[in-house]
Amino acid sequence: MWIRNCWHVAAFADEVGAAILPRKFLNQAVVMWRAPDNSLVAMEDRCPHRLVPLSKGFLREGRLTCGYHGLAFDASGACVHAPGQTELPRVKAKTFPLVERDGLAWIWLGESDLADPALVPDVHWMKSPGWTVSRGYHHIKADYRLINDNLLDLSHETYVHKETIGNSAVADAPVVVVVEEGRVVRAHREMPNIDPPPFFAMLLNHTGKINRFQIAIHLPPGVNMTEAGVYKSDGRREDAFVIRVPHLITPETEHSAHYHWGVCRNFRHDDSELTEGIRKGTSHTFDEDKAMLEIQDAALRAEGMPDLPRAAIKVDVAPMRARKLLADFCRAETEDPRAVLRPAPLAYDDRVSWPPRG
Amino acid sequence: MWIRNCWHVAAFADEVGAAILPRKFLNQAVVMWRAPDNSLVAMEDRCPHRLVPLSKGFLREGRLTCGYHGLAFDASGACVHAPGQTELPRVKAKTFPLVERDGLAWIWLGESDLADPALVPDVHWMKSPGWTVSRGYHHIKADYRLINDNLLDLSHETYVHKETIGNSAVADAPVVVVVEEGRVVRAHREMPNIDPPPFFAMLLNHTGKINRFQIAIHLPPGVNMTEAGVYKSDGRREDAFVIRVPHLITPETEHSAHYHWGVCRNFRHDDSELTEGIRKGTSHTFDEDKAMLEIQDAALRAEGMPDLPRAAIKVDVAPMRARKLLADFCRAETEDPRAVLRPAPLAYDDRVSWPPRG
Amino acid sequence: MWIRNCWHVAAFADEVGAAILPRKFLNQAVVMWRAPDNSLVAMEDRCPHRLVPLSKGFLREGRLTCGYHGLAFDASGACVHAPGQTELPRVKAKTFPLVERDGLAWIWLGESDLADPALVPDVHWMKSPGWTVSRGYHHIKADYRLINDNLLDLSHETYVHKETIGNSAVADAPVVVVVEEGRVVRAHREMPNIDPPPFFAMLLNHTGKINRFQIAIHLPPGVNMTEAGVYKSDGRREDAFVIRVPHLITPETEHSAHYHWGVCRNFRHDDSELTEGIRKGTSHTFDEDKAMLEIQDAALRAEGMPDLPRAAIKVDVAPMRARKLLADFCRAETEDPRAVLRPAPLAYDDRVSWPPRG
Repeated sequence: MWIRNCWHVAAFADEVGAAILPRKFLNQAVVMWRAPDNSLVAMEDRCPHRLVPLSKGFLREGRLTCGYHGLAFDASGACVHAPGQTELPRVKAKTFPLVERDGLAWIWLGESDLADPALVPDVHWMKSPGWTVSRGYHHIKADYRLINDNLLDLSHETYVHKETIGNSAVADAPVVVVVEEGRVVRAHREMPNIDPPPFFAMLLNHTGKINRFQIAIHLPPGVNMTEAGVYKSDGRREDAFVIRVPHLITPETEHSAHYHWGVCRNFRHDDSELTEGIRKGTSHTFDEDKAMLEIQDAALRAEGMPDLPRAAIKVDVAPMRARKLLADFCRAETEDPRAVLRPAPLAYDDRVSWPPRG
Repeated sequence: MWIRNCWHVAAFADEVGAAILPRKFLNQAVVMWRAPDNSLVAMEDRCPHRLVPLSKGFLREGRLTCGYHGLAFDASGACVHAPGQTELPRVKAKTFPLVERDGLAWIWLGESDLADPALVPDVHWMKSPGWTVSRGYHHIKADYRLINDNLLDLSHETYVHKETIGNSAVADAPVVVVVEEGRVVRAHREMPNIDPPPFFAMLLNHTGKINRFQIAIHLPPGVNMTEAGVYKSDGRREDAFVIRVPHLITPETEHSAHYHWGVCRNFRHDDSELTEGIRKGTSHTFDEDKAMLEIQDAALRAEGMPDLPRAAIKVDVAPMRARKLLADFCRAETEDPRAVLRPAPLAYDDRVSWPPRG
Repeated sequence: MWIRNCWHVAAFADEVGAAILPRKFLNQAVVMWRAPDNSLVAMEDRCPHRLVPLSKGFLREGRLTCGYHGLAFDASGACVHAPGQTELPRVKAKTFPLVERDGLAWIWLGESDLADPALVPDVHWMKSPGWTVSRGYHHIKADYRLINDNLLDLSHETYVHKETIGNSAVADAPVVVVVEEGRVVRAHREMPNIDPPPFFAMLLNHTGKINRFQIAIHLPPGVNMTEAGVYKSDGRREDAFVIRVPHLITPETEHSAHYHWGVCRNFRHDDSELTEGIRKGTSHTFDEDKAMLEIQDAALRAEGMPDLPRAAIKVDVAPMRARKLLADFCRAETEDPRAVLRPAPLAYDDRVSWPPRG
């Protein structure tokens, strides 16, 4: 259950060019590299001659050269060299649109002519002067929809992340869920006057009571953002430490996904120790999610991927609404292969994305 | 080819409660734990909410709690806590009858209301004042029927166990096979005046000629017992060292099984060194069976599990009769899902189970 | 796509007898051993009793004895011992013709009565007074046809073997391809006045310009020979160092193959250091092929084994002709299960196999 006519995150932009980067998306093997003019190239990762992966080859004079018989391809996918002949063969490597935006490489796997860069979701917090980012990548051996579910039902923090960001306050706080414009899901939680979980105690350097709020935001098929704020219970909301965490999920196969993330903060920009501390802590936190998600996927596969129970409990409301949006968009694309998913804004200009606009 | 309406050995009783014990039987994932009242609980090993294994969770206040979102279940399988709500959700974890008998936990995987504890096969030698036990467990990656076959044709001892309990006397001795009451197979061998295999030489502390007898007993679907006796050739049968070895086989999947065993002796009860020596020796012997059974299963799988040749040689008589009983019971259960297998007695009150009663 | 009515290389002859040798050919599990009269025996690698591999057993008194219950088989496959009975059971282990020729054991997997030793392909260079051999074995996890392709299009040397025998001269030299008698493919390349690749510089002890020629020869289904010569550009062709390299490919499964090879030279016979140097160098070179072939096979499997593009580029002519011959012979055998493939001579009596005879 995938959407093709949309941009998916393929890599951090600086990963491409540092090496020839092979990666699979939606079951399509792709090799990414940087052309001499610095533009990004994404190509089907197989030589049209003998079908070996081009990523096993090498770059020479700005062309990707197959490591088996030496056929060479330029950024357009045209074959520009073949062994034992001067006339060029009429073979071509298939290419995919790949654009650089906000420090990320975004790939379009659907109809190429529909690939409008204006449709790239806005996650400018990942690379903006006003924001400092701790970023990372996880490979998750699970259906990407389970990752979306996980990000939209943060009550799991109490159980899965009890060492870092979870405690009983999260699971017990009521959640308000809205779907905006039929395109974005927001799930909001206020946790006033609670004991701070370890990560936030560290952030605030404070072990007394805090106020915490949390908004889980989701754009189908896989752009998520957690917006979170914490401040001392006797402090002011305007002074809250706010972080925005894009979680950018791209299916690799039916049972695996790429998970690029960044923890973006608008405070203490010069504190590189904090940047690294957040990176380490978040990476560890997502390791815990990864473990649980992979256990869940394996259990579901063992049973032939049954449908999950619908809204078994109240915290399921947000994930279930997101699944319904996804199913709607998938059906739309099945009915019209040229249907295009236009992303909604993840967050507003003002500081916190709740209450929703309008 | 499984029977469901019968008791299968699930674990040694003291394994349950020492930890949350996940195990699979007949392809059903089960988690076993001990309730506050000390009774045994067996539950389907998946949370009805998001289908992750409950065995990845933890016990708290006598309830099994899911490690993902914290749903908690009591011994009846009722959900007694859910995050973010006070009204309890209408979800239930499926449970299975699990009873403690003779130091073993027995599970009933068929129709729950038919689970009569009186139907548990009698293997009281595993935990009785008059018997001392060396016990162990092997996980065998093979169709459980191959394990039954192996136990009913002990001529393999000559080749597989030549370092411990086998020599040419076993393979060469004629076997008498009877089926009693249409429910139990007995295969009997007398080996008078033979050289003692290493294990028995150790037991008798004697390297001269011995008399040996051996009865392989089988109740479908997987309860086996070897009754064996050895005494010096110039001694009296009444003074024989007799051991009864229940081999309790429970299918895990079509190609794997749990094998709980105990070597029960009615002599030298206080010799703990002997108890440990027997445990080690038997464990090593069954390692040899395990290796051969797994090779055999892999070879059969590679060929698409062909039927084994029927009674290709004379020693196949007992295994073939047992397979026929099993097939009959399976057919009976297919025809009537409420048909119940009533176990016959494995052994008589007198010392040796041969000749058969009546 | 296999041919059965022909001889395939099963092993180096001296491997059989040094041990009981299990190996699979065309998906058939075979065990090879040497009978007391020194003749070679090939048997289906499963005991007809309980279907365990006979290769897990042992030789005793010139019979292969099963390690499970001790059934013993003579070289004809007849059962000559069974446990617990004196009358011999009517079971037989299937045997296959296996003959020794040119230092190799050749097996016939088709109709046994058609197995004429006169049909063994002539690779006498592997064991003849006038030739010195460096030999080796590679197990390749790839469709054997990809190995044939690789050996018939040596332009890959430029890219895959650039450290040893390849440079741009190979890929750039034009190839002339002929099919002789509808049974053998020859692909010929002349490379005058080129820089010597490292291996040949070592062989000639010369880093100046050389003349090189190369003939790739192929008999379906898997007998290949590379004939190569090098001499200094200012030298005479008659003084060329010539090597003949039989590459003997036998399918193991659809995606794996046995690759026995020998580098046979008719010069410097007494130079054992050279013999070992060639063995090491060639083994390393074929490691590079193995890596690429396995990558290619894995890529093809991931796509469901699509047909390779037909003659995408000019160097594909020889492999494509060989594939056509193979397909023709396979079809012939499908139409007539008693059709037999008669091998053509690989090379002529004179020194170099080009131009072709006639």
